[in-house]
This record gives sequence, C-alpha cells and structure tokens, in this order.
Amino acid sequence: MPKFLILSSEAESYRNLIEAEKLPDLNWASAPASDVDIVLGEPSLIKLTLDPLPALSWVQSIWAGVEPLLDPTLRRDYILTNARGVFGGLMSEFVIGYMLLHERRMLQKLEAQRNNHWDDADTGTLRGKTLGLLGVGSIGAELAHTAKFFGMTVRGYTRESETSPHVDAYYHGENLLKFADRLDYLVSILPNTKDTRKIINADLLNALPSHALFINVGRGTAVDESALIDALNRNRIAGAVLDVFEKEPLPKDHPFWTTPNLLMTFHTSAPSLPEDITKVFIENYKLFIEGKPLKYQVDFERGY
Amino acid sequence: MPKFLILSSEAESYRNLIEAEKLPDLNWASAPASDVDIVLGEPSLIKLTLDPLPALSWVQSIWAGVEPLLDPTLRRDYILTNARGVFGGLMSEFVIGYMLLHERRMLQKLEAQRNNHWDDADTGTLRGKTLGLLGVGSIGAELAHTAKFFGMTVRGYTRESETSPHVDAYYHGENLLKFADRLDYLVSILPNTKDTRKIINADLLNALPSHALFINVGRGTAVDESALIDALNRNRIAGAVLDVFEKEPLPKDHPFWTTPNLLMTFHTSAPSLPEDITKVFIENYKLFIEGKPLKYQVDFERGY
Repeated sequence: MPKFLILSSEAESYRNLIEAEKLPDLNWASAPASDVDIVLGEPSLIKLTLDPLPALSWVQSIWAGVEPLLDPTLRRDYILTNARGVFGGLMSEFVIGYMLLHERRMLQKLEAQRNNHWDDADTGTLRGKTLGLLGVGSIGAELAHTAKFFGMTVRGYTRESETSPHVDAYYHGENLLKFADRLDYLVSILPNTKDTRKIINADLLNALPSHALFINVGRGTAVDESALIDALNRNRIAGAVLDVFEKEPLPKDHPFWTTPNLLMTFHTSAPSLPEDITKVFIENYKLFIEGKPLKYQVDFERGY
Repeated sequence: MPKFLILSSEAESYRNLIEAEKLPDLNWASAPASDVDIVLGEPSLIKLTLDPLPALSWVQSIWAGVEPLLDPTLRRDYILTNARGVFGGLMSEFVIGYMLLHERRMLQKLEAQRNNHWDDADTGTLRGKTLGLLGVGSIGAELAHTAKFFGMTVRGYTRESETSPHVDAYYHGENLLKFADRLDYLVSILPNTKDTRKIINADLLNALPSHALFINVGRGTAVDESALIDALNRNRIAGAVLDVFEKEPLPKDHPFWTTPNLLMTFHTSAPSLPEDITKVFIENYKLFIEGKPLKYQVDFERGY
C-alpha cells in the first residue's frame, strides 16, 4: 500500500479532491517520512524535501515546468511526471484574449473614453491573420485549434514533430527566420532547455513585420531580454505580452517595468487548478498501482 | 439594365470591389437621378436621398441596423435589404475579447505593472461560466458557437425561435428574470424595435449576480441607461461594456463617461468591411436580375 504525501500550498484542496475519489490502497502521510513512496506538489517545495524521502519512487508535479527538480546536483532516482494536457484551454484563452486586446485596440478605446472622445475608428480582426507558434506540444496544438476557429493561418516551429492537424505549415531547424517572415503574431510556448535559450533574439525579432505582437507563455529563458527591450524601444515590433521572465519575480529595477508597448502578466497565464491537476494525478495513480508506465514522464536530461 | 448608385463614405472601395466582379447589365450612376433602380450604402446617407430617386426599387444597406430608413414619414415603396451573416465572426471576437479582458483581469494586471507590483494573483477562465444571449439571430448563433468552443454554458432569450444548436437552454416571454438568474455574462444583440425598448431595466439588472458583466453589442435603445448607471454606481453588477447607446455619438456630458466599471467602444464592435458587404450585395444582385426574391429583406413594421 503506497504511502502518499502532498507538498503544496493548496494541500487542503488537493486532499479533499483526492479523498472524494476513494482510491484503493492509498495510505496518507502527513509529513515527510522515510517510507513515503509518492509525492504530489509544487517542484519548488518538493526540491527542499528530497533528502528525507529515501523510498520515493514517483513525484507528480502540479506544474508543467519542473526546473527546480532538474538541478543536476539533485537525486534523479525516481519517476518525475509533470502536469500536462490541462493547460491548453487556459493558455488558449490567454493568448486569444491578448491578441484580441491588440486587434480591437481595447487600451486605445479606454484611453479615448478617459479623454471624453468618441473614438469610432475601426479596429482589426483575427480572421485572416497569421499566428506563428514556437513549440507545438499539447498546449500549442490546442492554441492552433483555437486560432483556426477564429479563421487564422497557423505556422508551427518545432524540432521535428508535425503532429497537430491545426497547423497549416511546419518549420524546423534553420528555417526559423522563414517561419517569422510576415507573421502577425509570434507566440512562444517553449520550455526551458539548452536548445531554447535566447532563441527569441535580435535576428528573430528583426525578421518580424513592424506590426507584429510577440507573446511569451512558455519560459522566460527563451527570450534575449535585452534584444526584446531594444526592439520595443525602437518600435521594431508593435508590442509584447510577457507572462514569464528569465528571473521571477521580475526584479524591481528591471527595464521591462518601463519598456513601451509591453504588457506583463506575472506568470498567471495558466494557473494549476486543483480540479484539473487532481485528474492528472488520479489517472497516473491508477497506472502506478497496476505497475504500468506513467503518463507525462519527464526526461531529466531533456528537461521536459 | 438596372441603374445603380453607391451612397457611402467608402464608395471608392465598393466601386472597385464591385467592378472587379464584372456583373452583367450593371449601369453605374454617379449621382442621384430619376432613373436609379438600386442603391447601396449607409442608411443615414440614403435617407437624405430618397426623394430624388422616384424609380428606386431596391436598397441594400451596408449596415445591419436600418433605423434611419424606418422613419414612418419616409417612403416604403421599395425593397430594403440589410447586411446580415457577415457580422457574427466580428461580434464574436469582440464579445469573447471583452469577456477575457474581464476574466483575465487584464486592466488590473496593467495597473499592477504601472505600480511596479508583481501581481501573480490567479485569474479566471471562461470554461464553465454561463453566458446569456438576449436575442439569438445569426449573430447570436455564431456567438453561442464560439462560447461553446470555450466550454461555456449558453442560454438564449428569444421571442420564440429556438434554432441554434449551440444554445443549451432557451427562454421566452415572461421568463426573462429566470433567464438572468446566475448568469456570469449577459450579452444583448437585440435590434431596436418597440418590443426591445429598455428591456435591460432595473428588474433585469437586479436579477443578475453581483459578479456579472453586461455587454451590449445590439442597440442602445434596449437599455434603460439610468438603471444601468445606478446598478454600476452601487456595484450591483461587476461591470458593463457598451458598444451602442441610445444617442450616438454619446453626448459629451452623458454620465456614462464617468460611470465606474464601464467600458465604451463607440459603435465599433462589428465594422461593415467593404469586402464582406460586397459579397452580400453581389449575392442579392444576382437574385435581383433573375427576378427572384432577395435575401435579408427588412420588414418595415417589425424593424429588422
């Protein structure tokens, strides 16, 4: 009977949701102990507790990103699974929402209202616009689906996969600048790996049209932040929406706070909702007690 | 060979688009004349030109709303068709965009950014929320479809029609307050008719939950503006997004300019794009020269 520990700031919610499932053979631990087999929680908390858990065999992260557990000085003698398949809808809402904020000139309309000005200038539409997705995993595929629903053209840049039926054209490897050519929207959903570091650099930003909007809902490390600040200061692109940053929380004196045409959302684009994550855990728990391979396993070397 | 006149501020665009179609038997008029048969344009301009057009047999409005031509003192001895079937996508973008602005707390995140504050408070999601549509014609049906795509529950309030497969529950007649009960979003797409005047009144607003957002993309006459101002001032509802008003442009001293939690978009939710409207005209023109009944005919009495 596996012993199970929750390490989360929302432990209470998770406990209630999991108890309601009446899972077979689940033995609850209330604190780290030498016989704990399974841990569910935030990677940042779990990182601090790996040592007192010698029997640990499986960690289910409630986040998609598991960077804190990838530190090469840490143990890797357990199966690490992340949260997947639950963020696509939330991320799609976020990205579509901010693209519409841009197209429909919502902030300009608000400014007009404050100035007592009847601003009936026409606004734009997503229909017919081109969206480029940097990274097309399960989140990117759902985003592509949503963009197609709104009549957009969708390009995908991936290492090699071409699995989403909603991507109109795929690009790989050295075709990054070709991928960027004439995009209306560039959205990064890239994880933090050695291959993605600063992939959004001056060359890529310069390859975009000046009316393009860049949105980052992946990881901040994929952006060359100085190059982005420069591009925004020179109006090389129309704007950026950043949910993630190289360093979080963003330092108080970071130039992003005052860069023009930049909106920041402080890593809230796809919250880990306990109702969603519990479903992922339950699914994997059932596989675990049957001795079957778990879903959403993280490759420690690859980083996702 | 019918004689054809364009009365529009975008006459040049329309002329180019229509000429490119090389329609049979189309005889262009450059100014109002006694032998003009067909007029395409804005109802507000056409209203001023009805008298010098004795031979007029068909008017194609480039707007959905044709109020200027419904004035009972004006001629009604011609077929009036409005623009339909082209605004659903644009209106859906608008409504989804503003619902997401609200759910994702975009203006609060912007305020936090201006205050140098890392505001990582979770935001909401459209999934699972309930949308109530006042009026479910072709625009409402497309909006319902889009809302379902985002996992919302959709209610529709109509006179009697129940034609959209994307509406989960229909309400009619005296069930208006039942329709409003526990809505997260109330969206009016109602036209201006005697039956819709001030239908959004204090009773209806009081029947909404305090977290509800009201969006009006129909006609301003459907709203009791004093009741809405009162509801917003007392925080009876969370906010409102108004694209249309009883009097447009909104008078400079109207209280809406300073009402809290109110966003205004100055009648821009669904622009009449010449490429879209030209398709409607072409479709009807082909029916016209074949002597067949035109599409989208307006009933002068009913008003739409």
